[in-house]
Amino acid sequence: MSSAEEIAKAAKAAFEASQLIPSEERIVALHAIKRELEARKDEILTANKEDLQAAQVEVDAGRMSESLLKRLDLGKDDKWCSMLQGILDVATLPDPTGKVNYASELDDGLELYRVSCPIGVLLVIFEARPEVVVNIATLAIKSGNAAILKGGKESNRTTVLLANAISSGLAQTNLPPTYIQTIQTRAEVSSLLALDQYIDLVIPRGSNALVKNIQNNTRIPVMGHADGLCSVFLDESADIEKAVRVVVDSKVNYPSACNSAETLIVHESLLSTLWPVVAKALIAENVKLLCDERTLSHLNNTLDAEKLKSHVEPSAPESYSTEHLSLTLSVVSLPSLSSAIQWINSHSSHHTDSIVTESEANATTFCQGVDSAGVFVNASTRFADGFRYGFGTEVGISTGRIHARGPVGLEGLVTYKYKMRSKAKVGHTVGEFGTDGKQFKHKTIEATSVPF
Amino acid sequence: MSSAEEIAKAAKAAFEASQLIPSEERIVALHAIKRELEARKDEILTANKEDLQAAQVEVDAGRMSESLLKRLDLGKDDKWCSMLQGILDVATLPDPTGKVNYASELDDGLELYRVSCPIGVLLVIFEARPEVVVNIATLAIKSGNAAILKGGKESNRTTVLLANAISSGLAQTNLPPTYIQTIQTRAEVSSLLALDQYIDLVIPRGSNALVKNIQNNTRIPVMGHADGLCSVFLDESADIEKAVRVVVDSKVNYPSACNSAETLIVHESLLSTLWPVVAKALIAENVKLLCDERTLSHLNNTLDAEKLKSHVEPSAPESYSTEHLSLTLSVVSLPSLSSAIQWINSHSSHHTDSIVTESEANATTFCQGVDSAGVFVNASTRFADGFRYGFGTEVGISTGRIHARGPVGLEGLVTYKYKMRSKAKVGHTVGEFGTDGKQFKHKTIEATSVPF
Repeated sequence: MSSAEEIAKAAKAAFEASQLIPSEERIVALHAIKRELEARKDEILTANKEDLQAAQVEVDAGRMSESLLKRLDLGKDDKWCSMLQGILDVATLPDPTGKVNYASELDDGLELYRVSCPIGVLLVIFEARPEVVVNIATLAIKSGNAAILKGGKESNRTTVLLANAISSGLAQTNLPPTYIQTIQTRAEVSSLLALDQYIDLVIPRGSNALVKNIQNNTRIPVMGHADGLCSVFLDESADIEKAVRVVVDSKVNYPSACNSAETLIVHESLLSTLWPVVAKALIAENVKLLCDERTLSHLNNTLDAEKLKSHVEPSAPESYSTEHLSLTLSVVSLPSLSSAIQWINSHSSHHTDSIVTESEANATTFCQGVDSAGVFVNASTRFADGFRYGFGTEVGISTGRIHARGPVGLEGLVTYKYKMRSKAKVGHTVGEFGTDGKQFKHKTIEATSVPF
Repeated sequence: MSSAEEIAKAAKAAFEASQLIPSEERIVALHAIKRELEARKDEILTANKEDLQAAQVEVDAGRMSESLLKRLDLGKDDKWCSMLQGILDVATLPDPTGKVNYASELDDGLELYRVSCPIGVLLVIFEARPEVVVNIATLAIKSGNAAILKGGKESNRTTVLLANAISSGLAQTNLPPTYIQTIQTRAEVSSLLALDQYIDLVIPRGSNALVKNIQNNTRIPVMGHADGLCSVFLDESADIEKAVRVVVDSKVNYPSACNSAETLIVHESLLSTLWPVVAKALIAENVKLLCDERTLSHLNNTLDAEKLKSHVEPSAPESYSTEHLSLTLSVVSLPSLSSAIQWINSHSSHHTDSIVTESEANATTFCQGVDSAGVFVNASTRFADGFRYGFGTEVGISTGRIHARGPVGLEGLVTYKYKMRSKAKVGHTVGEFGTDGKQFKHKTIEATSVPF
């Protein structure tokens, strides 16, 4: 077995070598990997059953949750097919590299191009679902990055075979075999986090605790995918039908997703009008409401005692900083739009927040004042998603605000470099310019790719 | 005095409040700050003299370098005027916020806009030069970020007065007075580095050691401005005049700048032809050459003994990882373009590297294969600079590759958020979409600003 340093070094060397291989080869690799996975389907699903059996023992012993076990299952429904389809979908997306986004003629014959390029070596750490190894390998290859992947130990048997298929696919191309590598242990992760000379970006996909722990232990930049503490604010002018639809969808559509609403903020002018209607609609979907004093007291008058008892509880201060990930919603009433904005900025995880309003001015103020990756008007927080945004794929939803924020498509896996060329007979020197010399032209060049 | 937590909290509150103030107010603030500085010129330059006197004592005692002392001097040449002019220049640059760079109609009446916005609260740590406090405050205000600034203790008397002028300028506007704050002690920096709930980006401008130390001690993202270990490669087909001009300018134009060349790589086919000519040109500019065995032996035959003795020395392995920042250049000969690319990737700081070549193919390979922020053809490494690139200003030169790479303009101080609006009669829910429901349109919207 290789040491962490050997793995990291090999990844960097693979990345550097890959820079001189035409990007079409990366598409060839994706198709080869898909074929290898198809050929090994039975073997992989058999290993996956073994992972599931081992997990069942853990669940029976109370050491693992049922929901984690479910996420391990690669044979369930159309999971296998959509994993393979995902490879083809990403393969057909536009190449995110080689795109010019700034070009300027600095002087006669001196051209500058800022062009998108891969970041380098990615270290991706994820939990549970084994198909993520294929998803991430696909995204890394498509965007031209080398990657080191670490999955959850619960899906180890499956992951090893998926990784073998990826290696076999790569071996059929000119790309280096160490372009995508997988590791198994936390000790390896710890060692890799110290190697900032080889690894350029860490992408942890999992809990807040995982992300923070990694941020605390590395100099390498981290693109975190952590909690989603999303909220919906019902503004004074909210339309009742929009309010019911947006709130219910935000909470109920897929409660365990990070873009589901965890908090409902009700303008106090709606306490006796709109609020009970929204509450009834939520309870009809079996949502449990954790209410502050005022929203609770207004339900006392309008709900029958049984519903109140089964679905309504007083909230605690920590209710508003809890990611429920279930059919539970914290509710608070506030006196104004500005107090709602302040509340969201201090309580939300800056992921996605929505206002329901008929006021253009209030919509504008909300979107300007709320400091979150997504700020929505009369739309469900559940729209915060790379596919729904139209990126064709999703690397994850970044809860950081540097480099990539919110749903991240392939663009989040590239950076840029500056290419400059002098076509002058004697080349170009800085000494020629200045008060007594030449002046810079800075004339925009219309270009989508670099001509050299 | 406020605690670090109070300072950070106040900065975040100032940032959030500023989001609801029209961006024109930031321009008003810049002009007010310039006026305040003008009015206090004598007072500030007197304080600067006191800083210089105290520094002279340190220099005399051998505890401070002469070059550091020089950098403290705000009264030297046109430094004061260009500091004030810099405020006006930045004020007139286009607003980097509010720009739409992705817009899509997801469904009839459902619009998504990705729009540039400030990052939030910046913590900027720099050394020595007192005018940096004004430069950075200007850039932060222009880009809509709140900032906490820490200068070098050597310029403390000057910095305090500059900060007072900034506060007085801000006080004449609607922007919160704590929008720009300054701190004096390292202890405050240490405390602030733990407050990732309030601070969004740390920008250390200084040595590699400073940057690494900060990266080791914070979860907050760091935009590092560290060493520049730039190189020039003389390709087999290099033109002799271009070679001399590019190499000499890269080394001699401003040796203490991070974009100056520290290493020269000579294709071995040029050892007896082009190399001695370039060496003579460098020695004529008083450059000291640290040569590997082969480049050294070819000088033995062509240079007179005196020049050899005074300007040429054998290199050591560490010569090639040293940022000389002086008229010293490490020289190595390599057998091929590909070995030069590998050398640069493993030795350079990924800042800026240049090739001198007459071959289009080799230029392309070099620019593709060298993993640096700047890859130049027949042009001096000294062109790597925000002003020369046409950004109108320079936040610094980032040696990281996430978010901003290479010379950073105002664009490096913004991120983006997604604004979404439903104009549908009943708002928009995710549940309406799917195999049996509506399909996403993802139709590009041509827009440069958000219409709400």
